[in-house]
Amino acid sequence: MREDSSFVIENTSMNGNMEEEEFEGVEERDPERNPVNEPLLKRNRTLSSNPLALVGAKVSYIESLDYEINENDLFKQDWRSRSRCQVLQYIFLKWLLAFLVGLLTGIIATLINLAVENISGYKLLAVVEYIQQERYLMGYLYFTGTNFILTFIASILCVCFAPTAAGPGIPEIKAYLNGVDTPNMYGATTLFVKIVGSIGAVSAGLDLGKEGPLVHIGACIASLLGQGGPDNYRIKWKWLRYFNNDRDRRDLITCGASSGVCAAFRAPVGGVLFALEEVASWWRSALLWRTFCSTAVVVVVLRAFIELCHEGKCGLFGEGGLIMFDVSNVAVSYNVMDIIPVAIIGIIGGVLGSLYNYLLHKILRVYNLINQKGKIYKLLLSLSVSIFTSACQYGLPFLVNCTPCESSSCPTNGKSGNYKQFNCPKGLITFGIAVPSGLFLPIILIGSGYGRLLGILMKPYTNIDHGLLAVLGAASLMAGSMRMTVSLCVIFLELTNNLLLLPITMIVLLVAKTVGDSFNPSIYEIILHLKGLPFMDADPEPWMRNLSVGELIDVKPSVVSFRGVEKVANIVEALKNTTHNGFPVMDDDVEVEIVKLHGVILRAHLIKVLKEKWFLKEKRRTEEWEVREKFSWVELAEREGNIEDVGVTKDEMEMFVDLHPLTNTTPFTVLESMSVAKARILFRQVGLRHMLVVPKYQATGLCPVIGILTRQDLLAYNILSVFPHLAKSKGREKRN
Amino acid sequence: MREDSSFVIENTSMNGNMEEEEFEGVEERDPERNPVNEPLLKRNRTLSSNPLALVGAKVSYIESLDYEINENDLFKQDWRSRSRCQVLQYIFLKWLLAFLVGLLTGIIATLINLAVENISGYKLLAVVEYIQQERYLMGYLYFTGTNFILTFIASILCVCFAPTAAGPGIPEIKAYLNGVDTPNMYGATTLFVKIVGSIGAVSAGLDLGKEGPLVHIGACIASLLGQGGPDNYRIKWKWLRYFNNDRDRRDLITCGASSGVCAAFRAPVGGVLFALEEVASWWRSALLWRTFCSTAVVVVVLRAFIELCHEGKCGLFGEGGLIMFDVSNVAVSYNVMDIIPVAIIGIIGGVLGSLYNYLLHKILRVYNLINQKGKIYKLLLSLSVSIFTSACQYGLPFLVNCTPCESSSCPTNGKSGNYKQFNCPKGLITFGIAVPSGLFLPIILIGSGYGRLLGILMKPYTNIDHGLLAVLGAASLMAGSMRMTVSLCVIFLELTNNLLLLPITMIVLLVAKTVGDSFNPSIYEIILHLKGLPFMDADPEPWMRNLSVGELIDVKPSVVSFRGVEKVANIVEALKNTTHNGFPVMDDDVEVEIVKLHGVILRAHLIKVLKEKWFLKEKRRTEEWEVREKFSWVELAEREGNIEDVGVTKDEMEMFVDLHPLTNTTPFTVLESMSVAKARILFRQVGLRHMLVVPKYQATGLCPVIGILTRQDLLAYNILSVFPHLAKSKGREKRN
Repeated sequence: MREDSSFVIENTSMNGNMEEEEFEGVEERDPERNPVNEPLLKRNRTLSSNPLALVGAKVSYIESLDYEINENDLFKQDWRSRSRCQVLQYIFLKWLLAFLVGLLTGIIATLINLAVENISGYKLLAVVEYIQQERYLMGYLYFTGTNFILTFIASILCVCFAPTAAGPGIPEIKAYLNGVDTPNMYGATTLFVKIVGSIGAVSAGLDLGKEGPLVHIGACIASLLGQGGPDNYRIKWKWLRYFNNDRDRRDLITCGASSGVCAAFRAPVGGVLFALEEVASWWRSALLWRTFCSTAVVVVVLRAFIELCHEGKCGLFGEGGLIMFDVSNVAVSYNVMDIIPVAIIGIIGGVLGSLYNYLLHKILRVYNLINQKGKIYKLLLSLSVSIFTSACQYGLPFLVNCTPCESSSCPTNGKSGNYKQFNCPKGLITFGIAVPSGLFLPIILIGSGYGRLLGILMKPYTNIDHGLLAVLGAASLMAGSMRMTVSLCVIFLELTNNLLLLPITMIVLLVAKTVGDSFNPSIYEIILHLKGLPFMDADPEPWMRNLSVGELIDVKPSVVSFRGVEKVANIVEALKNTTHNGFPVMDDDVEVEIVKLHGVILRAHLIKVLKEKWFLKEKRRTEEWEVREKFSWVELAEREGNIEDVGVTKDEMEMFVDLHPLTNTTPFTVLESMSVAKARILFRQVGLRHMLVVPKYQATGLCPVIGILTRQDLLAYNILSVFPHLAKSKGREKRN
Repeated sequence: MREDSSFVIENTSMNGNMEEEEFEGVEERDPERNPVNEPLLKRNRTLSSNPLALVGAKVSYIESLDYEINENDLFKQDWRSRSRCQVLQYIFLKWLLAFLVGLLTGIIATLINLAVENISGYKLLAVVEYIQQERYLMGYLYFTGTNFILTFIASILCVCFAPTAAGPGIPEIKAYLNGVDTPNMYGATTLFVKIVGSIGAVSAGLDLGKEGPLVHIGACIASLLGQGGPDNYRIKWKWLRYFNNDRDRRDLITCGASSGVCAAFRAPVGGVLFALEEVASWWRSALLWRTFCSTAVVVVVLRAFIELCHEGKCGLFGEGGLIMFDVSNVAVSYNVMDIIPVAIIGIIGGVLGSLYNYLLHKILRVYNLINQKGKIYKLLLSLSVSIFTSACQYGLPFLVNCTPCESSSCPTNGKSGNYKQFNCPKGLITFGIAVPSGLFLPIILIGSGYGRLLGILMKPYTNIDHGLLAVLGAASLMAGSMRMTVSLCVIFLELTNNLLLLPITMIVLLVAKTVGDSFNPSIYEIILHLKGLPFMDADPEPWMRNLSVGELIDVKPSVVSFRGVEKVANIVEALKNTTHNGFPVMDDDVEVEIVKLHGVILRAHLIKVLKEKWFLKEKRRTEEWEVREKFSWVELAEREGNIEDVGVTKDEMEMFVDLHPLTNTTPFTVLESMSVAKARILFRQVGLRHMLVVPKYQATGLCPVIGILTRQDLLAYNILSVFPHLAKSKGREKRN
């Protein structure tokens, strides 16, 4: 039986002296032995490690988000007092924001397309002119020079102003929607750099897609709209205060991510499904149709712009704009026996896709080692990739003698479609360098190249159309790399505009995913792991059934808790000496020896109390009006503030604070006998930040809370570092 | 403070003497005052009411399903001992079953289509011949007679053999996937009656669709495959034992439901989305792609049959088969300004859809009153509807002088398309009578009729194609009635085979749903409520925040619990006197006065112990091998058995049972201070059957479990009957 009836705040620092020893422990392992499972960041072996992760291209300190409903007196009072009108305001604003997210994402996506097509169009026209004059070296210099300058602009912005804008952003958004607060991801600077950077990088001819940046742009817009503008110039519109919580922000960012995918592929249903299948961790039916609203708006905006540009006012911007396999008019004739070649395409796609993942993982590790050396190296890396890519793009058409692609099968890309190299898997090179980049387009290019190659080889055995084979090749490679099925299928459906392809696409996707899954995890999982983002999977590992949360609690430092009416000195001490974000609040009745759990109080709220100096001279409970005079729930929703900024005098240290009204009285709890597997299910399904562990015993004087578990404590990697024997135990079941 | 440290089993019957008084209480209310919110079944006002619901057309006793992972010693031992090979067996079988579900659903759907098209085709050919000979009365008699006989076959089968086969089945499946065990829904008889019945009813010309029956058929196939055949002739194949739990069965039935929708509309993505948006309550990414696999197989099967029938071997079965708006070759030209007429269609569709829901609700109430009178009345009802429908169908073309519809816009239905009445909203009549029926088709018919009408009226103001307007009309009416958006949109996309319609369809659907939602709930919610199925919504009501689970526990009879080693007599008594399905098991240590919660034991497992007579002469704990000698987890997974069938001698009554190894040691718990709103979130998100309430106090001698909450206790309707003042409290927020 555990005996910690005393609520003494201990002076242990969570992230102090243990670290060095742990770093050594990690170093001992051979980093090459299991490269996919080894993240780039080294982690502590204690359960409550200081959480660091790569956000964008920068190592950041990350926290968890709180999707739980905080039921403290103040918030509850607010709900009770909300009038019918305020509720309608809230609903109206939710829809208005979803609409605005779609509208702005659509407009920005069109502007990016417009800029990219014009820049790269004029660039290519000039180069073509040089070639026609047979001034090849001049053409090369012009081509490389322009690309170099464009890449330079993109990278210098990324490196200097918004390191989080580098990379595709999708893994970070996925982590955010899982409950990881990836910092500096959704600022106005990031948005600006992302827009300009992706224009520069894409028109520089780097082999990257726009869908990653567009998803990130959508999420940025959503976040900025939800908080009323950039951090320093926020509109303090009172309607917006309803959105100052992690749950509504999560929903908005989900809308933003869907809009981004939709804008990239002009695929509204595909956008929603992409968010549902790949990005979001929580999903509700109501959200489904709000995201659908956003993507519908995006499509209408895109359509309106195309109508506008039809009259030739947009320079070189054509109808294409986004990659489009136009096979809608190809007579698709296939029969049941074509399943065999289709399955073969799927298998090869799965193998190639997982190979792509493997190579990308290796390249990313090298890039990251270079990036870690400093800003100059980051810049040099992107520029050298740019020169290399330019050289390839310029040189390859001369070497390979590519056959001009037929109009029915090759991706049309505005007026820039003069020479295209399909068979050179160079997409690999550009991801991970300090420019905003996406993964879809390179994979589609490689895939369609491989599909065509296969078509040439398979010609004697099947009568499937060549263009169709290119599409299937692209689909199989994407499924083999990204391991999505339904959303990819719908995106391809919306790209190809041909519903008859559906059954055959589905089979390719299913086969490719199955084959790919047997080799390595999906590319987003690999990146999440590499970046060290504490993403929580839906399915617990089988060995988690053999471990109870009580055992986890035992290896954690003991919990720091407060009394309902607590001395200021104790609060200050606890906040300074720990990095905890939630503290249990307990009431004890000395006469009858009963200890009662009142709830959990958040660090942010404690800091608020200290800042506002809401202290009591005597140890007593306050009345409701006293609290409401001092705090409004609007202020309480702000999560800013640092304990270091709080100045408390020596006299004040001896005063008291009544924590009751600020305490979330309904925390989720598990018994100490609960298995980690089931605790994780609760944690993830409900979206918790803190989970209290309560004893299964009943005895006077026993503390009603014996521990708090957080996201980091429940991650397989962290648990295994403390209980290494579990990894060897049997039952390494596959996930689905 | 609550004081129930004694574990005495009380002799209170949960469903005894309280009932009469409660029925009277309900009678007092005016049944017409709030007809939509009043279910047909009268319910108890106590929290632990005996749960009754209308399943199909029959009142049944329903139980809850257990989606929680039962971690007792035996099951855990099994997981630990499962070899790599067995895990692979399980995964392989999961996919094989998903494949088979798709295959069989596809085959059966094709056979139904084949039969329907041939029967109604030949029937119509004969009638047309009579008409051409101007023998109108003879034609009428022939037409009505055939329809009468077909309806008679369908209804007699439903009424006598499988009452659960009546109606669309979708509400019951939705409830099943929410955790309500709707009995006799997935038997072999039901499957057979459903197949024959829907052939009869559809070819009798009743205004109903096949999608409801097909969804039910898919679910039946899935359930039967999962359990290895019909109840009495099960294959005891050892691989199948892994599927003997509610979770895997739920996943299978989800696959079956998607396959059914897919088979009805030849819409594989739409089928998956329909299951996701409307039918399923739990969803995982892994499930998404397993259901996708099933629907892909369905489509391949359907395609193969169409290829086969192309050569004219299938009688009158043509390419149509399923309703198809063939607008794929219509040049869709619309611009941004067309949003206004489109929005108007949406608004009208929303109003009409909610009106449809309202009327359907009224008619269903009347039908149910008739149905309650007995089998003969059920039969008479269906037959009179048949005669009425036949008269209308035969007579209306003569009266209304319907314009023959153009090939581009009207639903083609094989070769039966001679006279069609679009403008008569008769679909309403056939739902709810004792034949298998669906809701989609009647709504589509009414909707396209209204859309065409609108097209004629709007002609001067818009240049949208007439056929397109008919499609939009159908879509708006469906969205107004069913309140689905994404899945309907995809289904329409797959029906119309024209992706350019997408943005315009989305807008219509969004507007229609919004308008409809402001009037009444969706049609499926209305039916669920009418049938009294205890469906648990995703979002709790706002007033639930003001109620703690402790208050709910107080109005429930006190919990019946067992000691870890319990006397047989106590177990028998508890099982006979209560209808509880879960009992907390507690260990008490007399020396140090500590009470410890061991877990929860299920009624089924207690009955198993009594049946197997696994009794101990002395009060002691057993060793693991003793249990494993007696029980295998395979037997334990069976949920059969009734306490009445168990014979225990008087001597045995004095013996003991060690409940430890059969107890689920990791139940989910909430503190008594937890709000009902948040407890519901936990209950629904994790899929619980029993939720333990633990005290927030710590005191020696206090019982560690103060109550158990079940699905019925957490339903808004049941809570409001005990705490009527809550309904009046403020904050009736809208759901999304």
